[in-house]
Amino acid sequence: MRIILTGLLMMAVLLKAEGQERKRAREYGIHIGVLQPGANNAITDVQGVRIGHTTLVQGKQIRTGVTAILPHEGNVFQQKVPAAVYVGNGFGKLAGSTQVQELGHLETPIILTNTLGVGTAMNAVVGYTLQLPGNEQVQSVNAVVGETNDGYLNDIRGRYVTESHVLEAIRQAKTGPVAEGNVGAGTGTVCFGFKGGIGTASRKLPASLGGYTIGVLVQSNFGGVLQVNGVPVGEELRQFSFSKHVLESADGSCMMVVATDAPVDARNLERIAKRALMGLAKTGGIASNGSGDYVIAFSTHEGLRIPYTSAEKTQTVTLLRNDELSPLFMATIEATEEAIINSLFKAETMEGREQHVTEALPLNSVLKIMKKHHAIKR
Amino acid sequence: MRIILTGLLMMAVLLKAEGQERKRAREYGIHIGVLQPGANNAITDVQGVRIGHTTLVQGKQIRTGVTAILPHEGNVFQQKVPAAVYVGNGFGKLAGSTQVQELGHLETPIILTNTLGVGTAMNAVVGYTLQLPGNEQVQSVNAVVGETNDGYLNDIRGRYVTESHVLEAIRQAKTGPVAEGNVGAGTGTVCFGFKGGIGTASRKLPASLGGYTIGVLVQSNFGGVLQVNGVPVGEELRQFSFSKHVLESADGSCMMVVATDAPVDARNLERIAKRALMGLAKTGGIASNGSGDYVIAFSTHEGLRIPYTSAEKTQTVTLLRNDELSPLFMATIEATEEAIINSLFKAETMEGREQHVTEALPLNSVLKIMKKHHAIKR
Amino acid sequence: MRIILTGLLMMAVLLKAEGQERKRAREYGIHIGVLQPGANNAITDVQGVRIGHTTLVQGKQIRTGVTAILPHEGNVFQQKVPAAVYVGNGFGKLAGSTQVQELGHLETPIILTNTLGVGTAMNAVVGYTLQLPGNEQVQSVNAVVGETNDGYLNDIRGRYVTESHVLEAIRQAKTGPVAEGNVGAGTGTVCFGFKGGIGTASRKLPASLGGYTIGVLVQSNFGGVLQVNGVPVGEELRQFSFSKHVLESADGSCMMVVATDAPVDARNLERIAKRALMGLAKTGGIASNGSGDYVIAFSTHEGLRIPYTSAEKTQTVTLLRNDELSPLFMATIEATEEAIINSLFKAETMEGREQHVTEALPLNSVLKIMKKHHAIKR
Amino acid sequence: MRIILTGLLMMAVLLKAEGQERKRAREYGIHIGVLQPGANNAITDVQGVRIGHTTLVQGKQIRTGVTAILPHEGNVFQQKVPAAVYVGNGFGKLAGSTQVQELGHLETPIILTNTLGVGTAMNAVVGYTLQLPGNEQVQSVNAVVGETNDGYLNDIRGRYVTESHVLEAIRQAKTGPVAEGNVGAGTGTVCFGFKGGIGTASRKLPASLGGYTIGVLVQSNFGGVLQVNGVPVGEELRQFSFSKHVLESADGSCMMVVATDAPVDARNLERIAKRALMGLAKTGGIASNGSGDYVIAFSTHEGLRIPYTSAEKTQTVTLLRNDELSPLFMATIEATEEAIINSLFKAETMEGREQHVTEALPLNSVLKIMKKHHAIKR
Repeated sequence: MRIILTGLLMMAVLLKAEGQERKRAREYGIHIGVLQPGANNAITDVQGVRIGHTTLVQGKQIRTGVTAILPHEGNVFQQKVPAAVYVGNGFGKLAGSTQVQELGHLETPIILTNTLGVGTAMNAVVGYTLQLPGNEQVQSVNAVVGETNDGYLNDIRGRYVTESHVLEAIRQAKTGPVAEGNVGAGTGTVCFGFKGGIGTASRKLPASLGGYTIGVLVQSNFGGVLQVNGVPVGEELRQFSFSKHVLESADGSCMMVVATDAPVDARNLERIAKRALMGLAKTGGIASNGSGDYVIAFSTHEGLRIPYTSAEKTQTVTLLRNDELSPLFMATIEATEEAIINSLFKAETMEGREQHVTEALPLNSVLKIMKKHHAIKR
Repeated sequence: MRIILTGLLMMAVLLKAEGQERKRAREYGIHIGVLQPGANNAITDVQGVRIGHTTLVQGKQIRTGVTAILPHEGNVFQQKVPAAVYVGNGFGKLAGSTQVQELGHLETPIILTNTLGVGTAMNAVVGYTLQLPGNEQVQSVNAVVGETNDGYLNDIRGRYVTESHVLEAIRQAKTGPVAEGNVGAGTGTVCFGFKGGIGTASRKLPASLGGYTIGVLVQSNFGGVLQVNGVPVGEELRQFSFSKHVLESADGSCMMVVATDAPVDARNLERIAKRALMGLAKTGGIASNGSGDYVIAFSTHEGLRIPYTSAEKTQTVTLLRNDELSPLFMATIEATEEAIINSLFKAETMEGREQHVTEALPLNSVLKIMKKHHAIKR
Repeated sequence: MRIILTGLLMMAVLLKAEGQERKRAREYGIHIGVLQPGANNAITDVQGVRIGHTTLVQGKQIRTGVTAILPHEGNVFQQKVPAAVYVGNGFGKLAGSTQVQELGHLETPIILTNTLGVGTAMNAVVGYTLQLPGNEQVQSVNAVVGETNDGYLNDIRGRYVTESHVLEAIRQAKTGPVAEGNVGAGTGTVCFGFKGGIGTASRKLPASLGGYTIGVLVQSNFGGVLQVNGVPVGEELRQFSFSKHVLESADGSCMMVVATDAPVDARNLERIAKRALMGLAKTGGIASNGSGDYVIAFSTHEGLRIPYTSAEKTQTVTLLRNDELSPLFMATIEATEEAIINSLFKAETMEGREQHVTEALPLNSVLKIMKKHHAIKR
Repeated sequence: MRIILTGLLMMAVLLKAEGQERKRAREYGIHIGVLQPGANNAITDVQGVRIGHTTLVQGKQIRTGVTAILPHEGNVFQQKVPAAVYVGNGFGKLAGSTQVQELGHLETPIILTNTLGVGTAMNAVVGYTLQLPGNEQVQSVNAVVGETNDGYLNDIRGRYVTESHVLEAIRQAKTGPVAEGNVGAGTGTVCFGFKGGIGTASRKLPASLGGYTIGVLVQSNFGGVLQVNGVPVGEELRQFSFSKHVLESADGSCMMVVATDAPVDARNLERIAKRALMGLAKTGGIASNGSGDYVIAFSTHEGLRIPYTSAEKTQTVTLLRNDELSPLFMATIEATEEAIINSLFKAETMEGREQHVTEALPLNSVLKIMKKHHAIKR
């Protein structure tokens, strides 16, 4: 992550929060689901997946950014990965969906940014791909770019995301722990009326269920009635959609990216992608009319890489049988739910354009509520 | 509902339960969601919708049945209703889906039964429709028949559902309170490892959000990790899919029927249908590989009836704008969640074929867990 | 094929035609497309595919039947084949589509019959499958049954198709040449205002394009403006939809089954299925509002059989790369077009219920038109 | 249309052709289908639809451009039109498809350009929309941008299309006759191995069938076996995909835009969109693996405009019944077929990058072939 910060004020805004660093849900003893997370509890637990952020916080107007998800360390155009897209609610501008659905593969990094930045991000991905060594003859690039609308805090009409910002996110991408909250494409987003942002989580299946890893990364920006691991936090805080206290609509969006090392083809990746919406549902999201809720799922399994060109007319692959999918479905649901909760736990209060302020989820209150509901482990 | 019972033993099985009548979740103070239910908290709160059950409990082998959902009191073939189908996970035999999707309407009662009874139910619906006064020239009938697999308790290979049983369910259909649990198509179903069955619930939006009613009826027969209004009941009872305690798979299915009086066309009914899966997710369902999770949604709004024949080439309709859909989405999620929970609360322990016994959800334990988690209101 | 004929009158009707046996289009020098057909120019050119017909012509009222397509000689439930369904226009009752789409395979013979016979055919397929050796524990069967409406010539409301008729078609199924025209499910159908029926054709790709075979079988029952290999036969005969001469609607349906021995998975089979509609378009079909135009495509490639149960959690398959699909697309378009034309060439004039008579395509006139347009080879 | 030409050489290339202006198919007596075209036989026959082209022919490298389709003369964002997208084959980069599918409307001009120009065109459309009077508060714009790949003649990697070019196409948009062939987004495209480009056609239904107009505009860039009104021109010219004479692949794409004044909603517009692929099929196209074959259909019917904001929660609309759709389907098929043929008839031989030359369809030869096949009227 590279933060482009101007103004000490903003730094203060970023840090004030609750006087201390905000932790991820699991660090507070909130254990979502019944499966275990991977080493970093992040999408990067899927071997080879890298994440990069460009965070744009400038003056009082700019609160936006870019997040890049790279499926593997090589040239993704030359070594495509099986992939699928599921549209939960299509009020959004996801670029590249139809080609992924038709051909069953992904050939670029996935970029997340704001609603009006999709064209610029496509241009950046196209430029990036054309110039990669080995791609000198490439004439067609299917850039996959998702977005949510950060226009409450960010001067979205100013269109401040540039191609350089996108390329920077790709360049910065790395494995290991993933920055969450007000970073990258989550810099200016709002979720359940609180500050949303980037969140991630993972699940590693036990060996008896295949031992595969599912990792999820979300850009949370939607509404509904917040539940934290089933606890009605939104109701108790009296902040939820269509309540007397909150008259604003539930609109907003959620981009979800699911990575796995399981050997699954595009058809089963689409099924996995559908389960991410079920994870979103468990946080209390309602996929409102104005929401762009999209899931992109891909497999990093090496044996499934699809070479751009090949002397062979066929490809031999070893795939999981349908029967083995259910644990992956469960893992996807859990990891998506936890990724969204993490985005809320890590995001800090932010002031943006027109003195709009979105408060962070008040962790002290939330933890009290969680305790009251016996929902804290240990 | 007409119960076809043979054998006193079975009567005993049906009644033993926990020594008293099982109530619906809300009667125990479990309030799912933030919206209010309709008068009966049932799909029949949508004006004109009627439900009929034929329950087949005979000897030790037969534990199955039929549930009929009639969208209005008239001839549905002559006065079709706008409708949509959403396939959450398509390991199922739902008949009639493609025509509903193409033409955007429903022209028969919806029938739910067991997996191997779909053909018979189609035949019954075709026969029923052909003989209705006014349908003398009809040569094409799109029977909509859903199913789940009750083969654990029921001798499903015996194929005991007859056309008469289906016609009986249609004939018995009535408004008002709806029998739940081990009735109709839910007679032999299993949900989260407990006895499942038929469940229903509704939501009536406040006037400020349009005042419309959403009603849901489910045939619950699936697995996952049960949550009751967010409380991890499945974990606390140590009974959930892929746990050490329960090695069986999570397979199973859920048929969901959503009715509304809101003036929405097929496109928006499909969007409503998608939200029912989100309600299922909130109960802990995972839409496993072997699950047939289907939603059929229809609108009873009178102004939207589609006459089979018309002197007019056009039809004038008044439709909700997309912007107004979100409260209906929320209502669908809530009502589906509660309908599934009701199916578990009302279903009683059942012994079936080969001495298979499926225990009812142990309400006393569940209520204790709910209290511990501060999840009982009043 | 087993013809159940009663009444000499009908025999006369069947034979009068044009005083001689009607041949297939290619026998008259009509060469559709640029690729070569297989040995029988039939769906059975795909190794192992078998076709069976039950033809019901009784009295003046019954003009219907059943056609069964068996993908291979073994137990299809135990050894499923990759498959896909594409809905061109969904005014139809195809059973089994959603499970094929979800799981990507076919587990029963495909049955074609009339619109009101789908339930009965499902029951027959379920019964057939349950009793196959090895299926003793099977509790779920996804019967795939398509239909078109033969109600103009056939007393469809009489519902004369029985389970025995369906089982008979399965039993009779054989490889080699396929009976076309007024047989099986095509007995009573009408196409472009002429007598339609069953038709078939195939294409065998040259070795340079992979050497694979595509076979197509159709049940033709639709309208539009007939073109025979591009020649405007409908216009010249002054018989086409929405013309001054023919005021009836263009309604009707077409079931299309595509078989191939190419190693393609469900995703690419769906793409192949979509191309069959393009073949239909080339005959002048318009997929009218009332049409049920469905395609079922499957691969018989042995290495792709999906065992019902397996000790292995994965399956290794060798699949064609996307890049190699285009010749298969072209072959599908050509074979579908020719199969439809064959159904018209082989179908004879038929008199049915209420003295309805549908004339056969007048071959002498057609051939004259073809010659005028230089569309007869050799 | 604004032609940005540099170099006299190119002017010569554009004009040489066959020594005279190339006419549209109908002007040569080629009458496709049985319905009548509108006044201009163009998409602009649909009242209010406007077309603008920016044509980029510079030096030896640049052969590309932009075509804009404006659905009505007002602010399309404020007065959206019902719309649908159908994906024939999704090897393409169409932007905006999922939102059109979800919400059922179009809110911007449709832009067509080359494959690598989609991001730039999106940016242009976003900028254009944001600055329109009345859109001062708009924060979300669903730009619909289609493309085909003109990289054989055009130095597509040079990415010469700018936002100005896109805005110019929008500004130049006008009603009346539409420039075809090597203009706008069709400047550098190749079709059936000949020079393709922009083509258009229309059909006006007789009053008895509703009197509505269907207009189609295509950007033709695909392969197969060319048929002109059913005549096997590709075969006779010995130029077609997978033939001995032409070893190149059939890859390429076709963007199709369908406009109508019929009062049809998004569901029926999707059905109309599907029929455009059937028109493409009739020209001999095969929707090859590498093809991006997309259809966007919209209705200009005034009573169906969807206001961006409204004091009303409902909208009253008068819609065609399903039963009335078939003539519109037929009209769409015919107009699409003729639009593609027009694109070939009007496009002139072009030399582009690396001395690549794509010959125009040789009209003299084609007309001879057409005559031989008795396919010229009058």
